[in-house]
Amino acid sequence: MTGSSFSPIAWDGDAITLIDQRRLPAEEVYFTCATWEDAALAIREMVVRGAPAIGITAAYGVVLAARAGVDLEAAIAGLAATRPTAVNLFWALDRMRACRAAGGDLDAEARAIQAEDRAMCEAMGAHGAPLLPPGTRILTHCNAGALATGGHGTALGVIRTAHAQGRIAGVYADETRPYLQGARLTAWELQRDGVPVTVLPDVAAGHLMQQGRIDAVIVGTDRVAANGDVANKIGTYTVAVLAHAHGIPFYVAGPTSTIDLETPTGAGIPIEQRTPLEVTHVGDRRLVPVGVPVENPAFDVTPARLVTALITEHGVIRPPFAEGLAAHVAAADDGRRSPAGS
Amino acid sequence: MTGSSFSPIAWDGDAITLIDQRRLPAEEVYFTCATWEDAALAIREMVVRGAPAIGITAAYGVVLAARAGVDLEAAIAGLAATRPTAVNLFWALDRMRACRAAGGDLDAEARAIQAEDRAMCEAMGAHGAPLLPPGTRILTHCNAGALATGGHGTALGVIRTAHAQGRIAGVYADETRPYLQGARLTAWELQRDGVPVTVLPDVAAGHLMQQGRIDAVIVGTDRVAANGDVANKIGTYTVAVLAHAHGIPFYVAGPTSTIDLETPTGAGIPIEQRTPLEVTHVGDRRLVPVGVPVENPAFDVTPARLVTALITEHGVIRPPFAEGLAAHVAAADDGRRSPAGS
Repeated sequence: MTGSSFSPIAWDGDAITLIDQRRLPAEEVYFTCATWEDAALAIREMVVRGAPAIGITAAYGVVLAARAGVDLEAAIAGLAATRPTAVNLFWALDRMRACRAAGGDLDAEARAIQAEDRAMCEAMGAHGAPLLPPGTRILTHCNAGALATGGHGTALGVIRTAHAQGRIAGVYADETRPYLQGARLTAWELQRDGVPVTVLPDVAAGHLMQQGRIDAVIVGTDRVAANGDVANKIGTYTVAVLAHAHGIPFYVAGPTSTIDLETPTGAGIPIEQRTPLEVTHVGDRRLVPVGVPVENPAFDVTPARLVTALITEHGVIRPPFAEGLAAHVAAADDGRRSPAGS
Repeated sequence: MTGSSFSPIAWDGDAITLIDQRRLPAEEVYFTCATWEDAALAIREMVVRGAPAIGITAAYGVVLAARAGVDLEAAIAGLAATRPTAVNLFWALDRMRACRAAGGDLDAEARAIQAEDRAMCEAMGAHGAPLLPPGTRILTHCNAGALATGGHGTALGVIRTAHAQGRIAGVYADETRPYLQGARLTAWELQRDGVPVTVLPDVAAGHLMQQGRIDAVIVGTDRVAANGDVANKIGTYTVAVLAHAHGIPFYVAGPTSTIDLETPTGAGIPIEQRTPLEVTHVGDRRLVPVGVPVENPAFDVTPARLVTALITEHGVIRPPFAEGLAAHVAAADDGRRSPAGS
């Protein structure tokens, strides 16, 4: 099990080559970033999305800015201004800034961020897979997959590893309106890697749980607050409430870098509002009458009490999360030179 | 307050003219049914949808079949085979069959079914509106509106009446994947009638409740079992679970004809599976990779314990529903000659 069968983010030393996730599943088209502005555009316009993948792309963007000899702080500020919710973005940029301040090799640092992310996802898979007994029918929301990371994926990394171990009877992928990451991306990458996947409208998840057809839920996360509240794609909270109502375990997978001890609770996590166009249109087809206002929050916050366990590259954290997360981050900091170890 | 400002189902004695709901909100186009087969097609293909509207259309379809001199039982069977879940369809067809058996006037009977439906919706509005205090921000799912009935609507009938009484601060309309009845139809008809409406992706309803922005939920129903379990558009169950988790009242509005005392619980209600194309495509744009299977149940069942009250043309029924529903239906049968009375 060495991750996914495709490369969502490739770096050749001069440019970043991204699978253009806006075009999937209809077309497999690649988007090349030759400047930091290209990288910022790719993040803002969701050519690349998913918290770890955004961080990796931004890190390579800093390398491109340094190569071009532009004001590095201005480039970092420009990259930071693309998406507000994912803490990995700021974490990756801080790390690149610290590398520069220490006179380090920016190219090597960015490559290390991606390599570590791949290794972290593999480690998450190893820690998380044993939580899923053989025969598990698992539901996931959005795309916390290879496409969202340096490869392998967080939630889908756990699913990939569990599948390789013969634990997965099937994956249900919420289509994940409005941007349809589940229908377009999770379905694409699991199908490509031979993991059995079925797509459902988000509205059908409760019905499937009611029928006893879902054994576990696993999702990724964009930020975990110090108390264990989890920010993730809009709709995650609904899935968590449903899982709780049906006694189904609800797992969250994310690297330690998504744990933000500076944010006490989920109430402090800013929720990005995205353009109404994601709701009002699919392609050029209008779905909502002209003049009707639209709500389009990109994320929601799942309270810690609905989370069964958090899976990181270092292990599995169970409630109470306030203590567990602080200890986990402290241990990770101690072992910073080998973050994929456990 | 005399219903909506448009005519979703018009009968001129020779043909049924329907607003083609597949084309809304982009275009206001009308579909004419000159034969019972046209009416069956319109129901099956969802030119017309919504349990009461289906029943009315089928009743006029029986008139068209009688005019054409075809085997009436074959036409009734053909009309009954279009959609399996809505009990109103079978109720309307049974009533037309009984009218024929008694030597009655089929045209007058079908017109009566529509007129009674309009009057019932107005009565539902009168009974339901007082449940909503002034300033209510109300969430609805799917389209239980004028477009789904003979006019005025069930859930949206209550909202229309409450709005006329100054009780509604705003309506949140779930977009209601996969067929988008909320985004396309509820938004269209409320905007047209001047009721303030905002569309949200289904996945955002939990987030809005969590933020304290929803005061009540109201939905329609396709069938109510004898114990109070409610079949309605897929996703209704999820909204009910969310409302329960947030202590928000969950109201169901439907005519007495949707109460099916022959079906003891929701487990006995057949759930229609619709074509995967509704999920895999919007227009000609493919959203799901080729070869990935799809779940597309059209309805789900909300258990009675999650229902705060059921609103019919005869009044408001509160738990325990088993007793309340039976008494309600018995009282309605006693007053059958004037079903809109209370």
